[in-house]
Amino acid sequence: MNFVELIERKRDGGALSADEIGWLIKEYTEERAPDYQMAALLMAVYLEGLDGEELATWTEAMLRSGEVLDFSHIDAPKVDKHSTGGVGDKVSIPLAPIAAACGLAVPMISGRGLGHTGGTLDKLESIPGFRTKLDPAEFGAQLARHGLVLAGQSGSIAPADGKIYALRDATGTVPSIPLIASSIMSKKLAEGIDALVLDVKVGRGAFMKDTERARDLAETMIGIGRANRTAVTAFLTDMTQPLGREVGNASEIRESVEVLKGGGPPDLVEIVLTLGSEMLRLGGIEGDDASARSRLRGTIDSGAAFEKMMAIVEAQGGDAGVLEDPSRLALAKGEHVIEADRGGVVTRCDARDIGVAAMRLGAGRAKKEDDVDPGAGITVETKVGDEVAAGDPLLRLHWNEERRLTQALALAGTAVVVGDGPAAAPELVMEVIR
Amino acid sequence: MNFVELIERKRDGGALSADEIGWLIKEYTEERAPDYQMAALLMAVYLEGLDGEELATWTEAMLRSGEVLDFSHIDAPKVDKHSTGGVGDKVSIPLAPIAAACGLAVPMISGRGLGHTGGTLDKLESIPGFRTKLDPAEFGAQLARHGLVLAGQSGSIAPADGKIYALRDATGTVPSIPLIASSIMSKKLAEGIDALVLDVKVGRGAFMKDTERARDLAETMIGIGRANRTAVTAFLTDMTQPLGREVGNASEIRESVEVLKGGGPPDLVEIVLTLGSEMLRLGGIEGDDASARSRLRGTIDSGAAFEKMMAIVEAQGGDAGVLEDPSRLALAKGEHVIEADRGGVVTRCDARDIGVAAMRLGAGRAKKEDDVDPGAGITVETKVGDEVAAGDPLLRLHWNEERRLTQALALAGTAVVVGDGPAAAPELVMEVIR
Repeated sequence: MNFVELIERKRDGGALSADEIGWLIKEYTEERAPDYQMAALLMAVYLEGLDGEELATWTEAMLRSGEVLDFSHIDAPKVDKHSTGGVGDKVSIPLAPIAAACGLAVPMISGRGLGHTGGTLDKLESIPGFRTKLDPAEFGAQLARHGLVLAGQSGSIAPADGKIYALRDATGTVPSIPLIASSIMSKKLAEGIDALVLDVKVGRGAFMKDTERARDLAETMIGIGRANRTAVTAFLTDMTQPLGREVGNASEIRESVEVLKGGGPPDLVEIVLTLGSEMLRLGGIEGDDASARSRLRGTIDSGAAFEKMMAIVEAQGGDAGVLEDPSRLALAKGEHVIEADRGGVVTRCDARDIGVAAMRLGAGRAKKEDDVDPGAGITVETKVGDEVAAGDPLLRLHWNEERRLTQALALAGTAVVVGDGPAAAPELVMEVIR
Repeated sequence: MNFVELIERKRDGGALSADEIGWLIKEYTEERAPDYQMAALLMAVYLEGLDGEELATWTEAMLRSGEVLDFSHIDAPKVDKHSTGGVGDKVSIPLAPIAAACGLAVPMISGRGLGHTGGTLDKLESIPGFRTKLDPAEFGAQLARHGLVLAGQSGSIAPADGKIYALRDATGTVPSIPLIASSIMSKKLAEGIDALVLDVKVGRGAFMKDTERARDLAETMIGIGRANRTAVTAFLTDMTQPLGREVGNASEIRESVEVLKGGGPPDLVEIVLTLGSEMLRLGGIEGDDASARSRLRGTIDSGAAFEKMMAIVEAQGGDAGVLEDPSRLALAKGEHVIEADRGGVVTRCDARDIGVAAMRLGAGRAKKEDDVDPGAGITVETKVGDEVAAGDPLLRLHWNEERRLTQALALAGTAVVVGDGPAAAPELVMEVIR
């Protein structure tokens, strides 16, 4: 086979066979084909697409490029949840222990934040001592014992995806639905799961800005799941405004603990219950939404979910004491409050601008190499549709560096708008696709 | 500026500004941007195109990436001719000295052959001692003194094009009209010429298989010329069958000498006169085709054109004696004749198959690193429309290695077809575009 001829075929809108795709991915992953050839192929795929069969084999090739975890010795249904990422999206952190406390095995592999969306690993690492790097043996043992692992991706899982993702990031080929779908699904399918719940965020704060593209991505991932005999349900959920009140790292752990203790902001709790209910149904633990929700609530009310989180933090070397006393988590030294300059109704609470402002404060990374400041972030005091009086706090900016505060204010100052109203809160769960 | 953002803009069908294109080409040429980013950009350009303004600035940026020759101290009109390449296309070799003998200065920079089309440099190097590498000072001095240089491209001319062309070759982005047009024109405009005659070959033996794409390429190059105040005339000419009788290297020099001495096959002579006439008119030496042709013929008949060629070969270190006695040029040891197995009319004489067969004999290169065998090649005894009797020779294969002969025969055996006819010779000059 000849790499250039296969690039030319895709460039001209033709289809590649399973053997050809397998060969291309292998040649590149094993460093026989240079970055520039894969870059040209990725741009051709970006502009010409992949059909359903190509997509299934592309995903399969990435999945098979590394270790495929096998948890068949664990009896519990293995169900994971994945989010395409948003601002204030800490759903995994309370949801995973709640679902595990209900009897699922949740082999949750998360990522780091880049740009204006946060990453679950960064948030977890604001728990002192918490290790997100687990070797495969430890991962399997913990999953068998506790039914839950919260870890980063090991280099041995789908290495082709890691290499291709880094190249896409540098070549303007990230926002391609087949490439996004195959990237996510290759990693998730390598986790050895029985089923997957996808949270596809939609809106200015998310990767997918409109419902149509979000639906397309969701259906593409469901199709890949089907080709691999893995049940996948996708929810399209709102990301025009941040989820919950906290945007940051330590602050999102605090908010997650609130949920595990029966509190927390209603939008966050609703997403946790919606996705959790589907996980229980896909795992065969409950048959309908009402009983699933009641079981989820039960593990919160009994303290079982919180106990599960304590056990996991301890198992992964973290200081579980911070969960009992969240005031011990990092908090930035300064607080700057943006107040309403008039009374009225909140008509805009922009997830993207708040996300970028939080990143500028240090809560996120502009570049992969940047460090994250666990105590920096933004507290969102009001959401779209809320009534406010002049002088009411809209956003609280938690900062450690004055220079960063100045940069953040340039965006945060206009992120929340108070108008005459009326303004309705956006619909939180927009669509379910099975 | 950010390379990825500019890739994304082109990927999404947007236009790049002159400053942005200049920056992209400079970043890449000066090795601050990696191959993989340029590869992704080239694929986006391939699939999304460049508009007229982008194309002019892209060409300008490549042209300015290196030395721009300045021959303003030479009074003679500086006019060059460029062919997109074909089988048996040795037109430059007799045309350049004929045009120079008419009073033009011809700074002709040629290339090497790759694939089934031959390269003027390879042909010239079958003249023992002939040097095609000239430094810029020598180039200028010879042009001032003799009005003609026949050389290869110096690394100092449009280095961006050299680097980008090598990358296109490895990334499936060669056959893009804007990229081909800017590649050719950046080099030609860097030669400091006043006008250019383009020979765009059309047909199975050429890069452009159909008239429409050939016309598109011609018009694109004329537009770039106009933006750079350089008059360009393009001819679309036939490349369904080889030009002239000889396909090879030494043999094409022999055939070129025939033309310079007043002989040569009629199709080759006609192309030489057609292009030469336009060169004289663009250079302002003659006002109409009839007087231009008469002047061209005059320099052949007087021996001035042949003398010019002798002088150039001597100036560039070659053995001019081989021009006086062409039998001293290389000739392969073996000859295999393909004969007509029936009488009739030649209905097919396929330029591509004959070109590939000649390459297999050693006359051309399958890969850049290959050497060329100056004595190998094919003599085309009959053309479409010719009447033949059974047993008449159709092709003569000149070979040095039996293994290569076998490979060549697989294609050459069916390249010329004799049928019942009637079959008309293809129109040689299909279109003139000014």
